[in-house]
Amino acid sequence: MAPDPRFFGPAQPQTVAGLAAAVGAEVQGEVARVITGVAALSTAGPGDLSFLDNPRYRAQLPETRAGAVLLSPKDAPAVPAGTTALVTGEPYRAYARAADLLYPPAEPEPGVHPAAVVDEAATLAPGVRVEACAVVGPGAEIGENAWIEAGAVIGPSVVLGAGVRVGAGASVSHAIIGPRSRLYPGARVGQDGFGFAMGAGGHTKVPQLGRVLIGADVEIGANTCIDRGAGPDTVIGDGVWIDNLVQIGHNVVVGRGAVIVAQCGVSGSSRVGDFAALGGQVGVAGHLTIGAGARVAAQSGLMRDVPPGAEVMGSPALPIRRFMRQIATLARMTKDT
Amino acid sequence: MAPDPRFFGPAQPQTVAGLAAAVGAEVQGEVARVITGVAALSTAGPGDLSFLDNPRYRAQLPETRAGAVLLSPKDAPAVPAGTTALVTGEPYRAYARAADLLYPPAEPEPGVHPAAVVDEAATLAPGVRVEACAVVGPGAEIGENAWIEAGAVIGPSVVLGAGVRVGAGASVSHAIIGPRSRLYPGARVGQDGFGFAMGAGGHTKVPQLGRVLIGADVEIGANTCIDRGAGPDTVIGDGVWIDNLVQIGHNVVVGRGAVIVAQCGVSGSSRVGDFAALGGQVGVAGHLTIGAGARVAAQSGLMRDVPPGAEVMGSPALPIRRFMRQIATLARMTKDT
Amino acid sequence: MAPDPRFFGPAQPQTVAGLAAAVGAEVQGEVARVITGVAALSTAGPGDLSFLDNPRYRAQLPETRAGAVLLSPKDAPAVPAGTTALVTGEPYRAYARAADLLYPPAEPEPGVHPAAVVDEAATLAPGVRVEACAVVGPGAEIGENAWIEAGAVIGPSVVLGAGVRVGAGASVSHAIIGPRSRLYPGARVGQDGFGFAMGAGGHTKVPQLGRVLIGADVEIGANTCIDRGAGPDTVIGDGVWIDNLVQIGHNVVVGRGAVIVAQCGVSGSSRVGDFAALGGQVGVAGHLTIGAGARVAAQSGLMRDVPPGAEVMGSPALPIRRFMRQIATLARMTKDT
Repeated sequence: MAPDPRFFGPAQPQTVAGLAAAVGAEVQGEVARVITGVAALSTAGPGDLSFLDNPRYRAQLPETRAGAVLLSPKDAPAVPAGTTALVTGEPYRAYARAADLLYPPAEPEPGVHPAAVVDEAATLAPGVRVEACAVVGPGAEIGENAWIEAGAVIGPSVVLGAGVRVGAGASVSHAIIGPRSRLYPGARVGQDGFGFAMGAGGHTKVPQLGRVLIGADVEIGANTCIDRGAGPDTVIGDGVWIDNLVQIGHNVVVGRGAVIVAQCGVSGSSRVGDFAALGGQVGVAGHLTIGAGARVAAQSGLMRDVPPGAEVMGSPALPIRRFMRQIATLARMTKDT
Repeated sequence: MAPDPRFFGPAQPQTVAGLAAAVGAEVQGEVARVITGVAALSTAGPGDLSFLDNPRYRAQLPETRAGAVLLSPKDAPAVPAGTTALVTGEPYRAYARAADLLYPPAEPEPGVHPAAVVDEAATLAPGVRVEACAVVGPGAEIGENAWIEAGAVIGPSVVLGAGVRVGAGASVSHAIIGPRSRLYPGARVGQDGFGFAMGAGGHTKVPQLGRVLIGADVEIGANTCIDRGAGPDTVIGDGVWIDNLVQIGHNVVVGRGAVIVAQCGVSGSSRVGDFAALGGQVGVAGHLTIGAGARVAAQSGLMRDVPPGAEVMGSPALPIRRFMRQIATLARMTKDT
Repeated sequence: MAPDPRFFGPAQPQTVAGLAAAVGAEVQGEVARVITGVAALSTAGPGDLSFLDNPRYRAQLPETRAGAVLLSPKDAPAVPAGTTALVTGEPYRAYARAADLLYPPAEPEPGVHPAAVVDEAATLAPGVRVEACAVVGPGAEIGENAWIEAGAVIGPSVVLGAGVRVGAGASVSHAIIGPRSRLYPGARVGQDGFGFAMGAGGHTKVPQLGRVLIGADVEIGANTCIDRGAGPDTVIGDGVWIDNLVQIGHNVVVGRGAVIVAQCGVSGSSRVGDFAALGGQVGVAGHLTIGAGARVAAQSGLMRDVPPGAEVMGSPALPIRRFMRQIATLARMTKDT
């Protein structure tokens, strides 16, 4: 099944040789073949490019009918006769590049839709697209080729870098966003953090006087929330990937290249190190530091700092081997009873 | 307390006999009584219909002042003198039908609001309602009597079946939605999945070239997110019920009649079997299969497949009896110390 | 770093003496100093006010360069020479008041934006602000000085009290909201609860005939969802603070002053007592009662009632000491193996 042309347009056909050159893969097999689509190993046909990256799908390789498959050297011998092997050390990354060639993303037409509402005190660089029912507040600065989708709301004085894309119905306030970063639909950036002084007679709201600073090439998932700082700023580093429905509290600092999977919550003033990875539904208490490159398993609950490079799991989280030993111990004891 | 007429209009009075006939219940007691509202057992008066389904509320039955109560045969003897028993094997389902008779849902007036923005290259079947500040993109096909609420955004080429309802501020792209399905406010359907090739120097986005295919009679809760497929499609079967704030990753397949409670997350490429049920806040890792009819307790974390019909609990999840034994073992040992 | 004037305007300078009087603090040190900003202990300069509340940051006090610091009596001796101590029993609450004086929140200009859509059968009290692309339905009653941000949707017959603020892109239906309460962007209030009668052949939707009643001075976080009652109402008491991405099911009753941190889920018909506190990502099963003043640790899963004042933790939740003992027991046993 090739991608639906209603949504992705027709493929731009590529020769196997051309794709291999573009992605830096070595061709083993027929070079002249023309590729007109992409598909999974199990559904691909002779005109499709496929890839093998996750070993879970290795068993499908000998049966594939794909025209060409991107894969790593160790998998190349299992490619069936009718399929061209495109061998590379990074098959998934190579697939990403090839898919972009086959289905180049649509360039949006620039222009402000007549039903958009752009304050006269906002500044729009050339090439900006503002769709219907989007609202841009006074003092906002929208960078070159930025794309504001239908129904999105950009608050007063917000700065969007060049090529930023804000999804349908998303909202941004009190924020400065770097080039090429992208907010998916319904993302909420810059609202007040959850700051109040508790009291037996009622709670007193604490003014939230910081901003959200987002770097370059950041992805912020659908319906994800990033609160602005309480006084310090909330900071998201370059190249960070945040999935859907994530909560980032005030004053949090996320280092560059970090990955935060869906439904994680990072409480106020915690720090996530460069290239750290949080699995889905992880909870991080406030004022903690997660070291660079640390890996936190899904559903873990962090109540303490995590050293750089550590792997932790559980709620409360433990080093992953210790957690696994505890699981095993408990299982053994229970069988004994 | 009868439903607030500001929101639900006046009740359409029904005789007990008429309701019983409509829902297939047997009348035990006064037949001529007229019902003009619905209420819980504890607050109902002589003009109200109530029901008893959850045994937790059985103690309230003898004290109820309801005019009539839908309940199962075993509860009928406890109905007090002034109340008519409406006996049925499925009291909750019968209540649903009766409540629909008493408070028929408002039929929205068709028409495109002058402040809606419908692209001229979109197709609207008869009876469609598009509310203010909703946006419908080029090539979209909107089925008969579909209802697009205020501020919703329907992307290019999206197909909505007959009677589909899209809630306020929701957004849909790259999707084909079957008849009578409903998206609640703020739901996000069809945005890019979380697909990238990780790299030490930065992550490369992988084009997401699949769609979201949603069957008939599906409910998708408020602020829930369903990402489109990466190449394969994300598929939601007929009659699936998904609660609020749920995350469905790319390529996930949810079988018909499955139930997914609030704040669950199902990671990419996993499959949820027909009529399986996931309790609240469950997490499912990627590439797993949950068998038909399986039941997953709230907050469980799935790292392995679940066989059809199995009941599991815990994080990582275990067969529920084993989980309960482990809990008991640990409790016993701790008391011993 | 003082707050960014683009977003918060210039500070309204205050003398230390004036601030101390306004917040009820005792001055120890230079009184004449003028304060022109706020900052954290570690980044504050001579013109800034700071505060010390969380003991975690006590070590920063002797090194601070802040002009004045709000703190409790026991911390006063550690204030360095160049800094004025403002001593109070409630430093965080005092800081909230002082920050409001230094950065008074902007009063929005009243008026209905020409691109807003207010039904002619809606009622707007004086001073109301309705921003662009917001939609107000027929019969809605909007109280004095209420503020409806861009793209928000207020459904038919909804009642908003005086001073209510509804954030960008939020939606409200079937609800009555008390004075000064605030919905953050993307919050969803009043949609149908997750009510259906399960059946092997398919599920039957149960009409949701209740409302959402929200008290005074309530905060409802970004993208949080509060479903309306099924017949009874969903009720949120005065002064409740609900963080982002929280799910509140139908018929839930939250007592006044309760605090619900991000990503919690409270299932249908459960009750959260006055001033109870739920940590992040807590799950509460249906039909439970959490007593007044109870404290539930983050990520806990409640399957049983919690007595007033109790502290619980774990999934399923236990009294916190018992949970900690179990953790310790398991750790000890595992090391032994």
